[in-house]
Amino acid sequence: MSTPWWLKPCKPVDRDMQAAAGEHQQQLTKPAGSLGQLEALAVQLAGLQGRLKPRVDQLWIGIFAGDHGVVAEGVSAYPQAVTGQMLHNFVSGGAAISVLARQLGAQLDVVDLGTVTPMLELAGVRHLQLGAGTANFVQAPAMSDSQGLRALQAGRDSVLRAQAAGSEVFIGGEMGIGNTASASAVASALLACPASLLTGPGTGLDAAGVSHKARVIERALAFHEGHLGDPLQTLFRLGGFEIAALVGAYVACAQEGIVAVVDGFICTVAAMVAVRLNPQCREWLVFSHRGAEQGHRHVLESLQAEPLLDLGLRLGEGSGAALAVPLMRLACDLHGQMATFAQAAVADRPA
Amino acid sequence: MSTPWWLKPCKPVDRDMQAAAGEHQQQLTKPAGSLGQLEALAVQLAGLQGRLKPRVDQLWIGIFAGDHGVVAEGVSAYPQAVTGQMLHNFVSGGAAISVLARQLGAQLDVVDLGTVTPMLELAGVRHLQLGAGTANFVQAPAMSDSQGLRALQAGRDSVLRAQAAGSEVFIGGEMGIGNTASASAVASALLACPASLLTGPGTGLDAAGVSHKARVIERALAFHEGHLGDPLQTLFRLGGFEIAALVGAYVACAQEGIVAVVDGFICTVAAMVAVRLNPQCREWLVFSHRGAEQGHRHVLESLQAEPLLDLGLRLGEGSGAALAVPLMRLACDLHGQMATFAQAAVADRPA
Repeated sequence: MSTPWWLKPCKPVDRDMQAAAGEHQQQLTKPAGSLGQLEALAVQLAGLQGRLKPRVDQLWIGIFAGDHGVVAEGVSAYPQAVTGQMLHNFVSGGAAISVLARQLGAQLDVVDLGTVTPMLELAGVRHLQLGAGTANFVQAPAMSDSQGLRALQAGRDSVLRAQAAGSEVFIGGEMGIGNTASASAVASALLACPASLLTGPGTGLDAAGVSHKARVIERALAFHEGHLGDPLQTLFRLGGFEIAALVGAYVACAQEGIVAVVDGFICTVAAMVAVRLNPQCREWLVFSHRGAEQGHRHVLESLQAEPLLDLGLRLGEGSGAALAVPLMRLACDLHGQMATFAQAAVADRPA
Repeated sequence: MSTPWWLKPCKPVDRDMQAAAGEHQQQLTKPAGSLGQLEALAVQLAGLQGRLKPRVDQLWIGIFAGDHGVVAEGVSAYPQAVTGQMLHNFVSGGAAISVLARQLGAQLDVVDLGTVTPMLELAGVRHLQLGAGTANFVQAPAMSDSQGLRALQAGRDSVLRAQAAGSEVFIGGEMGIGNTASASAVASALLACPASLLTGPGTGLDAAGVSHKARVIERALAFHEGHLGDPLQTLFRLGGFEIAALVGAYVACAQEGIVAVVDGFICTVAAMVAVRLNPQCREWLVFSHRGAEQGHRHVLESLQAEPLLDLGLRLGEGSGAALAVPLMRLACDLHGQMATFAQAAVADRPA
């Protein structure tokens, strides 16, 4: 049997260009290191894009939506119908990510992998209908292998569309009532730590609701015990369609050579699965923010990620990643446009 | 004798508009609070600008430069001539703040208050020639009252030019070799804490250099003892021309009703002096970032400031404040353009 696509090699990072960009940074008219994280970011992007002066002009935002059977256990503050309603809001321009995409000049690609709203037909949304949401993972695998493979491919397909459109950066976003429960379950399984450590209020549960949600996840972890050694099976048993799509997207970005900007908790859990499946893809990920959901910082630490922002965000939709884009753009502008000490006839510090 | 201008009242914040903006935020199609700090920021800006949907389109960046006599004590990694050289770089477009101003569509106003470079005449720079830098504050007051008053007024004048140009937001930046030593001295005096707590490497001192710098500041604090009870005298005795200009600018922004975005350590110390002089001006300040200089977080805490960014920046020039502008703009866009639950027919969470 041939190697499945997600295990195929990622595009190698251009180490020579990365080194040259690091040298260039040292020549710019500022004290060395004084632009902090933005210096390392510009050098990383140079290595990934294979050009001394990287760019973040062409931006693609793929939004993946799906419903979650586990909502039947009472783990969300919102009704499940909101997933479909928000799909409409994305393409109508009223959602946070719609506003951000417009302001940033990004292409928005909205993919509905399967919601509880039957026969949803929205202009501007790709309806894939993998199912009426996932199954309740307390009682059964969230998705079948066939559904899972189609979800992974859906993420990859969005990346291939981004590539065809000439995108330099890919943002994955998600929408799905109940998906912090799914992300917490996947993360607890992969990090082998108690659900309570990785479970938070999501869209707005109170303390009792958070405890209940953690207990539901513990039940699910017990139910699936013995099947959670493999990241792909963990994803299919506890994940969501939109989370699987994000996993596929992150791996595909690294294979196709497109920088991926990772949003909040749910996206970061998807990124962790992607890195477990194909470790080379780690280098292609830029982490945008540290969110309010408590599990997020544990997952970020496990990936040794140092995000750019820490604003208490917990919206999802790719919004935190989009908010980091101007910083990435300005990091590139500073790297590409500042004068060197020699050009500006400014004295560098004495050796 | 009439009240000096910097003690005159600040423009009152529009509390009704602030409350209305807070109500509006609650109606937008997202979980309440899920945009974290950006929600409070949009509401604050609405109250300051007196409009339900605030804007950060018209941006003014005033850069104030001056030299510091205390550099004679060996407190900087760079030679003093760099201050003048960087003035040239600012107007030539090669400095970090020049790149940022261009990308953000900001007006750059470069003011030389007095450097060691004699007879500097640069097109595009306002040369005020208050002196060939300040006096060495270990031996004498850094500036005379007359110089100090002219420096305060220079900051105010830049704000009045910003206002005449229709600017909605003012960024103050600084350049002056040795000015972290001056800022640490002012902050140590105002916070009545040891210099070592507020002294860092500035542009790049090693550990021995930082210890030496702290001892120099302690000598200065001892020399001026008995004159440091008053914030204005503290500023004149230990500050710099550019720091005094920033103090004047922050007070003037609050009086004229222009939002001021505060940059790093030196600017935050100037903001602290401004707030001590005229406490009402605190509300008009938006703090952009927590910098790498260790004294910065103490000064921010004393002002109960929660900056937007934490990227390890330590460049100055107003660069950190400029980097926060896209976040402010996007906070306004989200606040002003997102659909409400009613408009989008999205179910709000059950009560």
